[in-house]
This record gives sequence, structure tokens and C-alpha cells, in this order.
Amino acid sequence: MLSFYEIIEKKKKGLPLEREEIQLWIDGVVQKSIPPEQSAALLMAICLKGMTEQEAATLTLCMASSGAVTDRSSVKGILLDKHSTGGVSDSTTLVLLPALAAAGYYSLKASGKGLGHTGGTVDKLASIPHLPVTLSSEERIRLTLLCGFSVTAASEDLAPADKILYDLRDRTATVDSIPLIAASVMSKKLAGGSDVILLDVKYGSGAFMKTKEQALTLAKMMISIGENAGRKTACLLSSMNQPLSPYVGCNAEMRAVIGVLRGEESDLNKVSRELFVRLTELASGRKDGGAQYDALIASGAALQSLRAYVQAAGGDVGVIDAPERLADAPVSREICAEASGYVNEINCQSVGMAAAVLGGGRVRAGDSIDHGAGVQYLLRVGDYVNKGDRIATLYTSDENKLAHAEALIKGSFALTEDRPEEQPLFYAFVSKDGITYYTEE
Amino acid sequence: MLSFYEIIEKKKKGLPLEREEIQLWIDGVVQKSIPPEQSAALLMAICLKGMTEQEAATLTLCMASSGAVTDRSSVKGILLDKHSTGGVSDSTTLVLLPALAAAGYYSLKASGKGLGHTGGTVDKLASIPHLPVTLSSEERIRLTLLCGFSVTAASEDLAPADKILYDLRDRTATVDSIPLIAASVMSKKLAGGSDVILLDVKYGSGAFMKTKEQALTLAKMMISIGENAGRKTACLLSSMNQPLSPYVGCNAEMRAVIGVLRGEESDLNKVSRELFVRLTELASGRKDGGAQYDALIASGAALQSLRAYVQAAGGDVGVIDAPERLADAPVSREICAEASGYVNEINCQSVGMAAAVLGGGRVRAGDSIDHGAGVQYLLRVGDYVNKGDRIATLYTSDENKLAHAEALIKGSFALTEDRPEEQPLFYAFVSKDGITYYTEE
Repeated sequence: MLSFYEIIEKKKKGLPLEREEIQLWIDGVVQKSIPPEQSAALLMAICLKGMTEQEAATLTLCMASSGAVTDRSSVKGILLDKHSTGGVSDSTTLVLLPALAAAGYYSLKASGKGLGHTGGTVDKLASIPHLPVTLSSEERIRLTLLCGFSVTAASEDLAPADKILYDLRDRTATVDSIPLIAASVMSKKLAGGSDVILLDVKYGSGAFMKTKEQALTLAKMMISIGENAGRKTACLLSSMNQPLSPYVGCNAEMRAVIGVLRGEESDLNKVSRELFVRLTELASGRKDGGAQYDALIASGAALQSLRAYVQAAGGDVGVIDAPERLADAPVSREICAEASGYVNEINCQSVGMAAAVLGGGRVRAGDSIDHGAGVQYLLRVGDYVNKGDRIATLYTSDENKLAHAEALIKGSFALTEDRPEEQPLFYAFVSKDGITYYTEE
Repeated sequence: MLSFYEIIEKKKKGLPLEREEIQLWIDGVVQKSIPPEQSAALLMAICLKGMTEQEAATLTLCMASSGAVTDRSSVKGILLDKHSTGGVSDSTTLVLLPALAAAGYYSLKASGKGLGHTGGTVDKLASIPHLPVTLSSEERIRLTLLCGFSVTAASEDLAPADKILYDLRDRTATVDSIPLIAASVMSKKLAGGSDVILLDVKYGSGAFMKTKEQALTLAKMMISIGENAGRKTACLLSSMNQPLSPYVGCNAEMRAVIGVLRGEESDLNKVSRELFVRLTELASGRKDGGAQYDALIASGAALQSLRAYVQAAGGDVGVIDAPERLADAPVSREICAEASGYVNEINCQSVGMAAAVLGGGRVRAGDSIDHGAGVQYLLRVGDYVNKGDRIATLYTSDENKLAHAEALIKGSFALTEDRPEEQPLFYAFVSKDGITYYTEE
């Protein structure tokens, strides 16, 4: 058995690590017998030398079993999980879970908090007054059996090795390693106990994966990990080159969710629908998910499913009926175009960061959230804007935050004389059976 | 100005760091504002992505100025420094400095402690009863002005950034990076204040650089760093494929030093002579260093120079006159050959580790030294041994240590039927003017 020093040395040379070597690392991380500087050196070596699918799968299993594993035994139906790799105005979970529940499926969702330019499902849900988002194991099961789904902030006990290593990666510039990202995501999914896992892998300016190729590599690795662990796992690769709706910020995104459940059209609806189609086909083999989703929206059944959850969990259902009560923060500033032209591209990360800077997200972990703060962002790639047109409105409770956010928004797009090509919303669907492309390459 | 996170990210991408970025790192290391895990990640990125000569030179200067710089202003002559990259039975400093002093040159030597298979000059010198080896700045200057040289253990204050980073590298498997090794060695040399620096870069089984090519790369980088800092810097590349004398251990090596100063022949004498020739030519342009060295040995002037130093520093000169008083440890074991054949190669590192294991060196930093412990190692590459011939004798104060050392010695050589080719002791001399090879390649 190698010492941990020799394990670092081995990875530095680009050699694959054995199961017991990875286990020794993860045990040492959780027990704090391996100091952070030794883990940091190994993380950097992994970033630069990579990991095989086998190594990533082993790392995932070791991290998944480093804490409590969700006991889902009392939920007898098929348990579905959907996870986004992170985006801007990406509130699909809050549309999808009520719709799935209305169709008879179960979800036992544990979600992380938003950080940087990406929002967090739990933060958005917490916009609903009195709704608890940190649930006990018993309450999660009770709500899921009653309403078909539940959403809780991930507990400290879920894959604690991942939490420690993620924090370390965040300080040592070792975040952007595909095997490390795959293991981090999948360790929490495996510990979460779902039968079917659909990963919405985002690519583009507002995603962690900037290119489709990176997104595809990550998708394949996560599918390999999930399938090896006996879970049906697939990935939708979708664009994050512009926000999914004009609303970025907790209250505004919760309003957008209710809007979609009431039948409003947006990319948020399109992505939620596609996720529903893919998940239900994975779970039951049914091919009519699109029609089923449309019917659940049109009938109000999906909206009713969300309302029932809020009521059962003790939240204020009034805001579901009157979403305008989910108010924007009091200080606002309109941003207007300073030139005319076609919107050629959008730096979606800047839009997300603007919302965070205004108080609507976390610039740093541990920041508190101002639920009314955010950005209404009106630009879409391909639009023509005239000088003077309103392109965005900023909302905050702190006037001093406006200038930074305004600079981010003004720098978030490029105008051209020629109309840019349309960008498809979906790139590919990937499962263990192969890759289906949405458009001709 | 980049944040330290962005500096790690930059090096991870293989980009060269700017002066102020390296300065920010070293300042943060010394002030402890940059945590070890962040430095560890950067060190691993440097190991895997390298550093340009310019970056290594900047790192060296930042580390050299991270603590006190030796005040050598009262020594008016040319100050010479010789440094070995570490070897087994490499006691050349203790032959060379008295010889140089006898020839009228000055040295103000600060030396590290031995670790692992390599011995330390200070540990060997401390074999002389009552001789202090941790000197104050004033005492170093007094002895150098009086005797032409002084030897002290490097103070905590000499390039403290290097000390912190070396300790971190030693725990994170980031030791074997040529720019980091070059910066570590040269930061202490530059802070040490010498005018002329000759580096004895060892290659082979007992050296950190296993190949001549690695040794040459390291040599060129150290010369570039030294010359850029205004110091005359050159490197001798010499073999460490077998010990320089049959004696490994503090008392035994001190006896070997006195033996050479009394005119005994060995590789220890050959390397000391070559270092003398090169250093005196670098310092004064004289080409007759070989004859001068031989005369200083033959006349006893070099031995007298060592004796005068010991006396002036308060040590027991009796052992210089009667080196047999530097006794071996009481427990001994003879090791005999178990087969016959030509000694084809020697794992010199195993010989050094055997001496350390017996108590004669430090297996771990902080271990105390048993000056009488060590190995008398009789094999030389090319020798023919008969089964049953004595090949080594182990000396220790602790019988329990014999078995491990015996295994190391028995595994330290390979026998063949054919006589191996002779291995030259010197490979090349490198200076800013180019490379001179000792033998045809």
C-alpha cells in the first residue's frame, strides 16, 4: 500500500490510481488525517493529468459513501432526479418537479445553494414566505409521499468529502477538471438515492463548460459513473448562451416559474418540457411525454401540484395565486442601449454576476440573499436594438450596488450590423445507448 | 494585479508569471497570508508546467531577499562558495575550504543539514568534540578573517521563504522540479553574499538528478540565475554512481577528510582537487590550481589550515592529530558477498540510506545523529568480488538497526560476469561561456 506522498507522486506522473489509493485519500479527507496542502497538490495533479472513467467512478463511490445515504425505502415508486450543472435564470427544477408529480412520478430533491453567477433552486423556492427549505429526513419523505416531491437544501451529511474537496478546489484553482466535476455532481446524486438521473449539462457563456465538446466529455463521464453504479443516467446538453427567461433573481424567477406553470412561453418552458419528455421516457419508456406535459400545464394540474406542496410544507400559498406579491427590491435603475445593432452574443455569466452583485445571489459563499434583488434582462441573441431602447432593469435594496451591476450589464453583449445565426437551445441527448443530436452538425 | 487564485490559474494554463505575481506569492508565504494549500497547488502546477529561466531567476531573487542577507562587507577579499547538490560520502567542502584558505581565498560557508541518503557538512564537522557549528554572524566573520573560512549551519533567517516552501514541497511530492530546485539552491547562495559560486551538480544513483541530462538542465538554469544576479557562477557535473570514499557516516567521513589532507588518494581527493582548480580559475584566472592544490596537500598547509580553524573556533584539535579518536559506533556487522562477479553498478542511494538507518544520518528531518554510526563500503564499480569476500561493515549503537541496513547493503549492487566499462568521475564543466566535456561523448 502506497503512502499518500507516493499517491501524489503517482498521479503527478500521470498514472491511474487504484481503488484503495482513492479510498485512502477520501477517508483521510473526511477524518482530516490528510492535510489540505497534500489534497491540494493531488487535486492540481488530477487537473493537469486527468483521471480515467474508472478512477472517476471510484472517486465518486468513495465520496458518495463518505456520509449518510438517503433512505428512500418508504417511497415505493420510481424516484427521479434532475440536476443542472448551473446556469442563469435556470429555474427548470421548480417547473419540472410539480409537473412530474402531477404525472405520478416521485422526486426527493436535495439542492445546493447558488454561488457566483449561478442561482440555486433552494434560494428561489425560499422566496415563498414561510416555506421551509431545510427539511428533516422525515419531512422530506412525508412531503414526497403526500405531494410527489420535496425540495431541501442538501444536508452537511450528504457526501461530506465532496463538500470539503469542493471548498478546497474553490480556493486552489482546481475547479475546472472534468473528472472532478463529474465525481462531485455524481457523488451527491448517488448518495441521494434516485433510480433515474437526468443531468442538464449546460454549455456556453453562462455555463461552467464553455464549449459543447467539454459538455459532451463531462456528460459521457457522468453517464459512465451513474450506469456503473446501477442508476439509469442520461444527459441533456442545452445552451446557456443567454438567460432562460428575462428574469434573474429569486422573487423574479419564482414569478417566472409560476408564469410557465400558468402557460407562459419562454426558454424556461422549452427546457422544462424537454427535461420532462426525456425523464419520463427514461423512467417508463413512454414516448408521449410532450403531449402529457402540455396537458398538465394547460389543465393547471402542474400548478396545482406546486400549490399543494407549498400548502403541505407550511408556506404561503397566497403568492402562488398572486405572484405579483413576490416583489422586486425597491431601488431600481433602467439600462438603455448606447448604440444600435443586432445582439450578436451575450455574456450570460456577466448577467448572472450582475444579479449576484445586486444582492440577488452570492458573490461569496455565505453571503445572504436579497430575494427582491436581480435583473430583468430584455436582450436575446438575434434581436435588433435601437439606441435608447431599454435593455435591462436592475433591482436592489442597496443603491451603492448599482454601478458595478450596470457596468456588468453594459459589458454583457456585443452588437453587430449583421443578423447573427440562430442558436439552437438543445445540442444533444446522451445516454448509455449513444448520442442523439438535435440539429445537423 | 491578479489575485493569488488567478496566479495559480495562470500557471495551471502553463503561462509565465510576472515579477509582481511571484513577489506576491513569496511575500504571502513569509507573512503566512497565503495558506499552504494554495501554495501547494501552485507548486504542483509549476512541477507539471515548468518555469522559464526568467521566472526561476525572479523566484530566486524574491526568496533570497525574503530574510536577512549575509553582511560580508568586512571580508575584503574574494568570497568563494562551493555547493554540492547532495551525495554520499561527499565531504569535499571540508577538504576544499581549508585548501582554499591556505591559498589565500575566503569562504563564509552556510550549510544545510543532511537528510535521507545524503550527508550534511555541518553534521560531519560536528564530529570534532566541542567544535561549534551554529555560529553567530560576528563569529562567522571573526573566524573567516582569522582562518580564511568558517562553516555554520544555515540560520533560520537565511531565505526563510525557501525553508517554508521546501518543507511544503517535501510533503506534497513537488520536490523534483528543476526550476524549484534551482531557485531553492540559488536563493541561499545569493543571500549568502559570495562573489564566486561553484556548484557541484551530482548525477547518478546517489544523486537527486538521476541522469546527466537532468543535471545539465539544472546547471544551466542555476548559472543563468547566478549570472543574472551578478555572481560569477559555474557548475561541475560529477558522478554520484558510487560513494566518493569507502566511508559513509560522520566520524568516518571526518577521518577520510583528514586522510585526504594528509595525502591519501580517493575520489574524495580527486573531486576536491577539481573543485579547487575550477574555483581558483574562476576567482583569479590562474591556470595552475592543480599544482597549487597538490603542493598545499604535500606541504601540510591545507591540513594546518583546518587545524587552525578548529583551534580558533574552540574545538578539540587532538582529533585532527589523532583521527583514530573519531571512533566507530560499538555494534558492528560484517557483510560478505553471497556470489562472485564484477560489480556492474552500485545503487549509491541505498548505501547512503543504510548509513542513515544505522543512525549516521537523518531518516526524517529532526532525527538526531549518531556520529559513530555508518557504513564502511568496500565495493567499487569494476571490482571483481569472490563469494565470501567482505564487502561492507556496518556500525551502529543500536543492534536493532542492523537488519534493515544489511538488507539495503545487500541490495545495493549488481554483479555480472563481464567487466563493466569504466565510469568517468567528471562529465562536464559548465559556465556562462559554455560547456567543456571531460570525455568524448
